[in-house]
Amino acid sequence: MSGIFGNKIKLSIFGESHGKAIGITIDGLKPGIELDLDYIKEQMGRRAPGTSEFTTPRKEADEFEILSGCFNGKTTGTPICAIIKNKDTHSKDYEKTKNLLRPGHADFTGFVKYNGFNDYRGGGHFSGRITAPLVFAGAICKKILEDKNIVIGSHIKSIGNISDASLFDPVLIKEDDLRLFSKSRFPVIDKESCQKMKDTIISAKSESDSVGGIVETAVINIPSGIGDPFFDSVESILSHLLFSIPAVKGVEFGEGFNISSMKGSQANDEYYVDDNNEIKTKTNNNGGILGGITNGMPILFKTSIKPTASISKLQKTVDVEKMQNSELIIQGRHDPCIVPRAIPVIESVTAIGILDMMNI
Amino acid sequence: MSGIFGNKIKLSIFGESHGKAIGITIDGLKPGIELDLDYIKEQMGRRAPGTSEFTTPRKEADEFEILSGCFNGKTTGTPICAIIKNKDTHSKDYEKTKNLLRPGHADFTGFVKYNGFNDYRGGGHFSGRITAPLVFAGAICKKILEDKNIVIGSHIKSIGNISDASLFDPVLIKEDDLRLFSKSRFPVIDKESCQKMKDTIISAKSESDSVGGIVETAVINIPSGIGDPFFDSVESILSHLLFSIPAVKGVEFGEGFNISSMKGSQANDEYYVDDNNEIKTKTNNNGGILGGITNGMPILFKTSIKPTASISKLQKTVDVEKMQNSELIIQGRHDPCIVPRAIPVIESVTAIGILDMMNI
Amino acid sequence: MSGIFGNKIKLSIFGESHGKAIGITIDGLKPGIELDLDYIKEQMGRRAPGTSEFTTPRKEADEFEILSGCFNGKTTGTPICAIIKNKDTHSKDYEKTKNLLRPGHADFTGFVKYNGFNDYRGGGHFSGRITAPLVFAGAICKKILEDKNIVIGSHIKSIGNISDASLFDPVLIKEDDLRLFSKSRFPVIDKESCQKMKDTIISAKSESDSVGGIVETAVINIPSGIGDPFFDSVESILSHLLFSIPAVKGVEFGEGFNISSMKGSQANDEYYVDDNNEIKTKTNNNGGILGGITNGMPILFKTSIKPTASISKLQKTVDVEKMQNSELIIQGRHDPCIVPRAIPVIESVTAIGILDMMNI
Amino acid sequence: MSGIFGNKIKLSIFGESHGKAIGITIDGLKPGIELDLDYIKEQMGRRAPGTSEFTTPRKEADEFEILSGCFNGKTTGTPICAIIKNKDTHSKDYEKTKNLLRPGHADFTGFVKYNGFNDYRGGGHFSGRITAPLVFAGAICKKILEDKNIVIGSHIKSIGNISDASLFDPVLIKEDDLRLFSKSRFPVIDKESCQKMKDTIISAKSESDSVGGIVETAVINIPSGIGDPFFDSVESILSHLLFSIPAVKGVEFGEGFNISSMKGSQANDEYYVDDNNEIKTKTNNNGGILGGITNGMPILFKTSIKPTASISKLQKTVDVEKMQNSELIIQGRHDPCIVPRAIPVIESVTAIGILDMMNI
Repeated sequence: MSGIFGNKIKLSIFGESHGKAIGITIDGLKPGIELDLDYIKEQMGRRAPGTSEFTTPRKEADEFEILSGCFNGKTTGTPICAIIKNKDTHSKDYEKTKNLLRPGHADFTGFVKYNGFNDYRGGGHFSGRITAPLVFAGAICKKILEDKNIVIGSHIKSIGNISDASLFDPVLIKEDDLRLFSKSRFPVIDKESCQKMKDTIISAKSESDSVGGIVETAVINIPSGIGDPFFDSVESILSHLLFSIPAVKGVEFGEGFNISSMKGSQANDEYYVDDNNEIKTKTNNNGGILGGITNGMPILFKTSIKPTASISKLQKTVDVEKMQNSELIIQGRHDPCIVPRAIPVIESVTAIGILDMMNI
Repeated sequence: MSGIFGNKIKLSIFGESHGKAIGITIDGLKPGIELDLDYIKEQMGRRAPGTSEFTTPRKEADEFEILSGCFNGKTTGTPICAIIKNKDTHSKDYEKTKNLLRPGHADFTGFVKYNGFNDYRGGGHFSGRITAPLVFAGAICKKILEDKNIVIGSHIKSIGNISDASLFDPVLIKEDDLRLFSKSRFPVIDKESCQKMKDTIISAKSESDSVGGIVETAVINIPSGIGDPFFDSVESILSHLLFSIPAVKGVEFGEGFNISSMKGSQANDEYYVDDNNEIKTKTNNNGGILGGITNGMPILFKTSIKPTASISKLQKTVDVEKMQNSELIIQGRHDPCIVPRAIPVIESVTAIGILDMMNI
Repeated sequence: MSGIFGNKIKLSIFGESHGKAIGITIDGLKPGIELDLDYIKEQMGRRAPGTSEFTTPRKEADEFEILSGCFNGKTTGTPICAIIKNKDTHSKDYEKTKNLLRPGHADFTGFVKYNGFNDYRGGGHFSGRITAPLVFAGAICKKILEDKNIVIGSHIKSIGNISDASLFDPVLIKEDDLRLFSKSRFPVIDKESCQKMKDTIISAKSESDSVGGIVETAVINIPSGIGDPFFDSVESILSHLLFSIPAVKGVEFGEGFNISSMKGSQANDEYYVDDNNEIKTKTNNNGGILGGITNGMPILFKTSIKPTASISKLQKTVDVEKMQNSELIIQGRHDPCIVPRAIPVIESVTAIGILDMMNI
Repeated sequence: MSGIFGNKIKLSIFGESHGKAIGITIDGLKPGIELDLDYIKEQMGRRAPGTSEFTTPRKEADEFEILSGCFNGKTTGTPICAIIKNKDTHSKDYEKTKNLLRPGHADFTGFVKYNGFNDYRGGGHFSGRITAPLVFAGAICKKILEDKNIVIGSHIKSIGNISDASLFDPVLIKEDDLRLFSKSRFPVIDKESCQKMKDTIISAKSESDSVGGIVETAVINIPSGIGDPFFDSVESILSHLLFSIPAVKGVEFGEGFNISSMKGSQANDEYYVDDNNEIKTKTNNNGGILGGITNGMPILFKTSIKPTASISKLQKTVDVEKMQNSELIIQGRHDPCIVPRAIPVIESVTAIGILDMMNI
């Protein structure tokens, strides 16, 4: 089983890359919330393919259709189901090579898991395309949070070996910047780094190869006291959701892996009372979370995204029907770098996870 | 809410550091499993405090008492509850400083979350001590897996700036080595690194400070096909559990954050048919997981652990009652480095998560 | 929240009576199960409106469209979503009287629950129409069980004051009879009673009134050992699902309310070893369930269904906008008796509940 | 699996009749709630055995010990675990007859379910004794509701063939009466009926037999809008919990099975605006629930309880080891009628279910 998540808000996701439609049901949203369709479209547009030279040329408008849970433009409080019909499918691309396990993909594991009954076309249920409905749900949640002044934004911290020259300031992230980033299709702080990243992607594409990257995300103006000790820590809920996104291989909060080489006296975020008589920390090495619960500082985390598994270079593999070694060149259409399109998905699951913990 | 986790196996955890007892209920284990009490004690001994100069001198035998679910030495199939009574509590240590928020701890977030009604003594429900019952449950699960030849072991990859000279070979980890590590209290591959790590801890202790580290864990002989796409990926389940362990700030699978700087042609693990006519990969950059599902290669992940928050150096903080800036020297007893004691907890939640996905 | 149910199989239901579509997602079915579309249509036909004089003339073909989880006619193991588009909606019927709370309906409770944002047309999410997707899911589950020789069937035990002359023999229900009943649109054992029941319905209809009834259901050839003690008893799981069907007000297993007036010596089902060396009971007062777990005897239960709330007689009520007493004649289209159409829904949730507990 | 229940409040129950201890963990209660130990003891006293000639002479003080989640007499917001040690066990009573399946008990189904590994002594995990921790949890919830003026009370509607002369008035139940009943150990409205019921029990006892009965429960002052459509209707949640109580075989809400023989015009509860400008119904045939959601009228339901399965009359049965027909006289100690002791359990699960839906 796979497709259900949440406590106060429950998601149920479904669909295959080349099936009739993909979609999601969201249960537990409060009634009377106005659905801002333009906002949803904007967020889905950030994830949609075919919009730039950095993405697959597969064109999917990703037009969603809301089937339920919305009346007179507002949530009813009952489950919202939205579907996105699949259109531009080249299913035949996958017929010839269906027995050749694509390295880095779920072809082999899906085959084993489902005894060969899975829909292999375009990765089926394992396709990154299934994240489109997630962005639908995430956009609704992100908007609800934004209306409460809780802003989620990200920048590309690195593509391949190129890093963004600047980091989000862990303590004083500016709200306006974050709002801009939260709409951007290629959010990088440093302009020069931005260009180098784009060059890196184009270069990999020209080599029939691909590159990955790291995304840094911030959530600001989140109140303290969100999350639960033990199994439902903020880190647990967010990492659970982040690792459900295909291609994510690492998640760290605050200083993450770096914090392991700090001394306690350096890592501990000391408290002080600020001018508004609120308790703040001077540093934010813990990424806004202590004991699994928010402390009112920005939530900060980084997500590692592997290079696109689909490359058109020759790769060694196995023919699973003949059970013999073989070779494979993936034709099809694919992204030389999935990182920019992954950002709205990362922000979506973040919004979903936070709303699930807040229940506003 | 906080204390429930699992699908096929459900855990329910409870307790505070200075309350009457801490404990756990495990529901969903098959009937007729012999409980190997010596094995459980051995694993709990790895986590227990007061056993070496690297840990807090608080002495807790961590003697567990099984209240239910066990008859004639075997599981009955009904919920197993085990408790550990708290004995060596110095509750008064915490009275004087209860209004001074300890940096890096959950004092502030717990105070906000529970409106000041939480048991603050020794960190209450947020104490690392609550992981003792988790090791009880984990030891049972780890033994069930070992009896199926699925072995979980770890080594300390780093303490502070000292790294283990060797890494687990991602493809060919030796079972015998892993079995040894899975019982060790300070598992390091390279002897020289091991000594340096110990020196680092002692040095931090002498400075009234603390250090963190990184643990690398492997699970071998795990069949392919375990885990589910989307919300219940192996990475999602394991990271959810790992991030519920206090002090964990980062989790990465396979090459994790490194994979983000690889090319696709390098990151993709190519398949081949081995001598036993089984499908294997030549490399294991994906840590044994593709599409959220095991591929039969070793599961590999690293966990970043922050330096112990309790240090006896002077720290700046806030008095939450007076709402004014203050200073704090934590007296009490604490570990200069929590990493060695965190290992059995990491292995425990890994065993729990895997058993939950396998249902054997 | 409302629309998610299940442990091993998870359902997610959505839709409103006059929205774009209603539907359901089923997660957790094994891969490789052939979907028998004719069987599903047959079962959905038993529930569909407009098929006889006993039902509402609203004509809905209830044509389902499978969007996901099915490839080459077989389940893939990933979530199956099916939708049914709404067609023959007379939404305007509901505009005029939308502030007049229909007695016996969820108009008032839905209004309060959702602060007036619910889709009131045709009862919205509370409409009996939402059970159509449930029959889709139930038909799949019922077929899986039938292929294992586990048969679920029902007869109308009573309509108004007319009782079926015969009861299901609690011990020796014949499989062939049950298979026939499981497809029937008006299953009654005794022919004379059957006619009287039909007359009762027509008579109520002619009086602009409605009648209810009791359905008795049997599940045969179910193995012993299904269900769990305490919170997931067979009775708990089945009653939970049965009481989710609109209009159900009572559920009893075996002798149910009658057993309360028996002596222990009479109520206890004595055991014996039958000719096949299997343990059976001579009587079946406990309806095949002891300690919440099946004992291998037929599962027997009765479900009480209230008379259709929609009647075209004048009723006193309240205008919720003006907050004053008022009167109401419900125009629209409605069933004089919902019992026959409720049967496939009862059997559907039974099949879903049993499959959820069996995981076959 | 079995022992976990709840959404906003999660229960985890454990224990066997003759094990070390039985207990429960309650997760999700708000912090700062004062635990009224006397109230809890009073409610547990209503369920405790050995207190009158109507119950088993097994004496268990049912003294609970709170292990966690309570600090300075108040809830901390973290999981509360309470245990009750087993004391007066006559385990040897069960050794001799352990292979003789007791009719009406879970001996056979438990044996099959757990492959013979279950603790058979005193019914093990299936024992009615496991309801003691449920009353602990229920008493806390019932008190929280009472402090909000929501009162849960019951009367014995029947014992064997003796009915209480009066019914709860479905519309105007008096709060003072209900408060009295909610503490009574033998709550019957009509005094003469009360005596006849007691005589019936004594008479059954003298015949080495047992009797059952029906309990009618009311919940008053509950706000409208509690519960959810579809799978989490008030009826679904309450019946799920009620059917987890051993010996319960039927549950009906409002007029329940009677409503099936009413006309719609009679069954529908007509609305009116009362003197306080609140919307009420004139009748309460639907037991305060419409569309699965409370309408502000009293919640009314009846629970059918079968006669105690343990009787000391000779019964035919099967020796499960020898697989041959046999006979059995149950020695041990048992209640001639479980109904009075079942009442606090019914009220407990009702309180738990309602609090779970309300989240106050």
